[in-house]
Amino acid sequence: MNTSSQRNIKVGIIGATGYTGQELLGILFRHSKVDIVFVSSESNEGQSLSQNFPQFKSELKFINLSQSKSFNANDLDLVFFTTPNNIAVNNAKDFLDKGISVIDFSADFRLKTNEEYAKYYGFEHKDLDLLKSACYGLVEQKRKEIQKLKKPFLIANPGCYTTASNLALLPICSYKKDVFDFNSIIINGASGVSGAGKKLDQSLSFNEANENFKAYNIAGKHRHTPEINMVLSEAAKREIKVSFTPHLIPMFRGLLVTCYINTKENFDLKNFFKHYKDYYENDFFINIFELGLLPETKLTNKNNSCFIGMDHDKDCNRLIICSTIDNLVKGAAGQAVQSMNLAYGFHETLGLV
Amino acid sequence: MNTSSQRNIKVGIIGATGYTGQELLGILFRHSKVDIVFVSSESNEGQSLSQNFPQFKSELKFINLSQSKSFNANDLDLVFFTTPNNIAVNNAKDFLDKGISVIDFSADFRLKTNEEYAKYYGFEHKDLDLLKSACYGLVEQKRKEIQKLKKPFLIANPGCYTTASNLALLPICSYKKDVFDFNSIIINGASGVSGAGKKLDQSLSFNEANENFKAYNIAGKHRHTPEINMVLSEAAKREIKVSFTPHLIPMFRGLLVTCYINTKENFDLKNFFKHYKDYYENDFFINIFELGLLPETKLTNKNNSCFIGMDHDKDCNRLIICSTIDNLVKGAAGQAVQSMNLAYGFHETLGLV
Amino acid sequence: MNTSSQRNIKVGIIGATGYTGQELLGILFRHSKVDIVFVSSESNEGQSLSQNFPQFKSELKFINLSQSKSFNANDLDLVFFTTPNNIAVNNAKDFLDKGISVIDFSADFRLKTNEEYAKYYGFEHKDLDLLKSACYGLVEQKRKEIQKLKKPFLIANPGCYTTASNLALLPICSYKKDVFDFNSIIINGASGVSGAGKKLDQSLSFNEANENFKAYNIAGKHRHTPEINMVLSEAAKREIKVSFTPHLIPMFRGLLVTCYINTKENFDLKNFFKHYKDYYENDFFINIFELGLLPETKLTNKNNSCFIGMDHDKDCNRLIICSTIDNLVKGAAGQAVQSMNLAYGFHETLGLV
Amino acid sequence: MNTSSQRNIKVGIIGATGYTGQELLGILFRHSKVDIVFVSSESNEGQSLSQNFPQFKSELKFINLSQSKSFNANDLDLVFFTTPNNIAVNNAKDFLDKGISVIDFSADFRLKTNEEYAKYYGFEHKDLDLLKSACYGLVEQKRKEIQKLKKPFLIANPGCYTTASNLALLPICSYKKDVFDFNSIIINGASGVSGAGKKLDQSLSFNEANENFKAYNIAGKHRHTPEINMVLSEAAKREIKVSFTPHLIPMFRGLLVTCYINTKENFDLKNFFKHYKDYYENDFFINIFELGLLPETKLTNKNNSCFIGMDHDKDCNRLIICSTIDNLVKGAAGQAVQSMNLAYGFHETLGLV
Repeated sequence: MNTSSQRNIKVGIIGATGYTGQELLGILFRHSKVDIVFVSSESNEGQSLSQNFPQFKSELKFINLSQSKSFNANDLDLVFFTTPNNIAVNNAKDFLDKGISVIDFSADFRLKTNEEYAKYYGFEHKDLDLLKSACYGLVEQKRKEIQKLKKPFLIANPGCYTTASNLALLPICSYKKDVFDFNSIIINGASGVSGAGKKLDQSLSFNEANENFKAYNIAGKHRHTPEINMVLSEAAKREIKVSFTPHLIPMFRGLLVTCYINTKENFDLKNFFKHYKDYYENDFFINIFELGLLPETKLTNKNNSCFIGMDHDKDCNRLIICSTIDNLVKGAAGQAVQSMNLAYGFHETLGLV
Repeated sequence: MNTSSQRNIKVGIIGATGYTGQELLGILFRHSKVDIVFVSSESNEGQSLSQNFPQFKSELKFINLSQSKSFNANDLDLVFFTTPNNIAVNNAKDFLDKGISVIDFSADFRLKTNEEYAKYYGFEHKDLDLLKSACYGLVEQKRKEIQKLKKPFLIANPGCYTTASNLALLPICSYKKDVFDFNSIIINGASGVSGAGKKLDQSLSFNEANENFKAYNIAGKHRHTPEINMVLSEAAKREIKVSFTPHLIPMFRGLLVTCYINTKENFDLKNFFKHYKDYYENDFFINIFELGLLPETKLTNKNNSCFIGMDHDKDCNRLIICSTIDNLVKGAAGQAVQSMNLAYGFHETLGLV
Repeated sequence: MNTSSQRNIKVGIIGATGYTGQELLGILFRHSKVDIVFVSSESNEGQSLSQNFPQFKSELKFINLSQSKSFNANDLDLVFFTTPNNIAVNNAKDFLDKGISVIDFSADFRLKTNEEYAKYYGFEHKDLDLLKSACYGLVEQKRKEIQKLKKPFLIANPGCYTTASNLALLPICSYKKDVFDFNSIIINGASGVSGAGKKLDQSLSFNEANENFKAYNIAGKHRHTPEINMVLSEAAKREIKVSFTPHLIPMFRGLLVTCYINTKENFDLKNFFKHYKDYYENDFFINIFELGLLPETKLTNKNNSCFIGMDHDKDCNRLIICSTIDNLVKGAAGQAVQSMNLAYGFHETLGLV
Repeated sequence: MNTSSQRNIKVGIIGATGYTGQELLGILFRHSKVDIVFVSSESNEGQSLSQNFPQFKSELKFINLSQSKSFNANDLDLVFFTTPNNIAVNNAKDFLDKGISVIDFSADFRLKTNEEYAKYYGFEHKDLDLLKSACYGLVEQKRKEIQKLKKPFLIANPGCYTTASNLALLPICSYKKDVFDFNSIIINGASGVSGAGKKLDQSLSFNEANENFKAYNIAGKHRHTPEINMVLSEAAKREIKVSFTPHLIPMFRGLLVTCYINTKENFDLKNFFKHYKDYYENDFFINIFELGLLPETKLTNKNNSCFIGMDHDKDCNRLIICSTIDNLVKGAAGQAVQSMNLAYGFHETLGLV
């Protein structure tokens, strides 16, 4: 498809004052095929975007959620929800019914069953049909599906830890049988504080979070656990349950997961590494380090790439894979734009670095 | 033993300009039963301690290593080596032969075999008899042995990751049989940058290490791996090989290990937790959090305590234990003073917080 | 006075959960002549100190303010208020009337006039007699006064910026006439985030304060301005009005002021420097750097010293003095203990480093 | 000029491994009118750019300086020197003589006289004619001059502190006479550690620079002092000598200067503020905050804007202006691209945010 001849798409952002909302704004202002027609925020309604966020030079003013629903499909192609959980689930349909597509950054359309929503998110999903219609936007896994989406579409943008974890582990699921012990997967994650969003919380104050490191929501309690299990189980065509342990790093952005899986005697690292590189051969944003090298979060700063490195612990028969992304870009706003690009027939990398 | 009637001991510090050396100085200047008789440093020889480290008000001047050997047992009871690896191994004997005791912060006397020194440290150990005579100074494991040491003694002060890891896992080794899979132990560690010492290295510059997180020396390559295996194997009376993966945190001090071990169906968290607390009942510096709570590195700031929390992942049958220490205190200078206190009959906590 | 024969004093801390309160607790737990008889906090009433702050091993439980007033002079010698402004002013008298001394960390007894309280703190001072009776606890300026205090006494512990600024500039006030232009004083300060205390505020969240630097309350608006003017004017016996500009540094503790004053042609740096050192000759906690060297906040970490360095800009006829303290120690808890030591006849440095 | 019809310009970067070089690469890879034809680095010669800096997806390999001189004007329009001082001065002419333009990030062509180079940089300038021919690239001051440059041109890209300081103070120079005391200017600056570049230095290690703040090169010793004086003196048409005091902030990027100037009785803030805004009316990258608001360094993150706020201290008759930029963008790579855009007739903001 010839991108340059296409008209620009008109988008709106609901919840544009949070960290992922701001990141998305930064990307979209530079995106050559997008016009931002509104930003919405309940708390900043009526205020100017530039006055609140002087780094953006724009004439936009914040509207509220209900005003955003006055747009119709002629004025608006796509709405991004960069809101907390349990908001898009109640509002996405109002846009979809008018023919306006939705990309949701929250978990509201990521999982499959009401049980999981009840257990991990504490609410019953009100619209299981809508849930079923949502496309899970992990591009490297679902590229073809996203490219074929009919408008208006609903994309569930994956979680940040989930993205880094699944990108690290997907090639394992398609490797030879009888090499890995799929019951042994441990994902030890760590994220910068922006992953916790903008909420006011003593433990997220500078004075508490600075010069500090801790685990939280361990032993299967973190909400990304069922999402990781869902993706890997689908890919491996067997039930997979991982141990996922997140940690909080005293830095703003960036996330790294260190994944462990037991290998059987016949495991050959070089052979597996070749398979791994082949698996991601056509994925622009996946950057696999040569054996012996390891990635670091700093590399991901404000870009949409996932950097991956690995090694095999022969003494313990265990494969270790490190995977890092910018939680606000590939883990949120960048991945959403990557999906948007595919769904509208733009080049997958347009506006992204 | 009545501490207050005892005379002060006279100590010297070799390598007093590094981070663990400075930490030790800070503790010893406040220790009521210690007189510091010399500080040594090749690079700062002849300079005043206070001029180089204005936080210390002292008349001491740095001497060099060979000058430090002019002391005899009347003037000097104990020497601390806070030097890099492969220095104490060549110099400790000169003090011991004169009746002067030695506490070594490096790895030179921690391991048991020449093979391990060759594999992990790249040098052949020159004095296996001396190596054999050294007492491994993990106080919570070796308290009685340290208390009974005859002077002059040689104590190998444990590594920082090793200390946090073994304190987390020792109670497992003495628990009921057939509850844990000892082949499944994974230790995911993370440390502040002071753990890397004072060496000049681009990757340890502020500009590179700040706002960054990464794994290093993964897959069994980190030197603390054989030390952890040694302690746990001795305690469990079986060979244990752990997967140890260290990470670098953008902060100065503090270290946290997240340990994983698979449990069998009969595992009962409450019963195990009771055993765990009993195990450390008489250990002042071990602080075990109630179930549901997790420690953070900030708590360890400049104190000698190890804070431990745990939970059980029922979906995966896996126990997760988090353990944190200040790498410069319980992981180095504080633990050395704790050993010194015991070896000289002072109260174990004297001068420590 | 022979310290060792004196009985321990019994103290209580009101507002013990804030950063200065915690710092004070850490110092007092190690102070050999102090017994802490209570800690009070409205929000943590009834809870155990160690459970909230596991770094402290103590049996104390938090009481509330009104319970703290049930103590009498037999059970309690001294109360520290480590509370926000406008609390001690309403409660100190209840203790003083019972013969219990008070050291207040807030600004409630620092200034002299109701006008200043109205202008800078937004409240009318209710008790001008009490205000008049308070001793301003800048030890290096008021040592003799503090030593002579009769019990029960009321000490106003100075502000953090004020302490660093006045320690830097006091020697100027007693130097030869006609050398400085006292109308030209500019104090450019910068402090770690702990200076802002524990209040919940988006701008003090890790995500906002990290990797950020800004001025605030500029152009005479910061509350420490009148306090600095008060001390310098008294010392110089003339009215002095400084420009004080604070900044926020992305770090936890430490504060540095860079002070500027215009010099006349006859200014001689070496002569002035000799005067400066003489001025502080007997002040243990004042550490003056040789010309050519400058202090940094890291030196002050957890100690009670003030480090000072200076240079003269000949092209502009301007003296520049840098002064740094730990805002939580010399700028708060340490200075209070220094005052306490003097008022009770202990050695000035007891329990302090 | 119609940008879209113009051919792309071909540029090379000498010293592309430093922080300003990497920043420039990031900007130029996204710049629609630029093709990067080479990157040079002595230390990385022969290596691939992407292998050393995986965040860049590029086929470029590092060449050395002498190889870079094999290009001629057909293959190369413009060379950026992102090298330390005293390199461009010896090599720029080799490019200019072949008709290739040069933008130099170092100080080699910023000042006017050999005396200043001898005093502040310790070398004699070898080519005073070349020095004279250089255009000083502070765009907001020299826009017309830069637009009229004939090729091959030589642009001296301003220093980072200089840029923030002069942008803050330029409007003062053109305001009414007899309002300011030009002898009273004090510039108190503070910069993130990236300002010190990539050199290995203990004081720039994470362990030393983290949680630390200090002044350095005070009292007129910093090399940006004569550069600030030069620009302001030219603008004010009188000799101006400022006191400039830099400080080091524990963060990577961002720089803020707090400028002080004494005002006479007739000073009116509102009137001056209007003049100030008018002065920068047509400057896209200058963002002046309304009275009462102050900028912070975080706003400048990776963008080319300068954010300015001010207030008047009436008690002291002193105007205070805070100005902040990203030292790597508006203070280096961004400003260079802004100059490049103007010199080639592109839109001034092309490729910049």
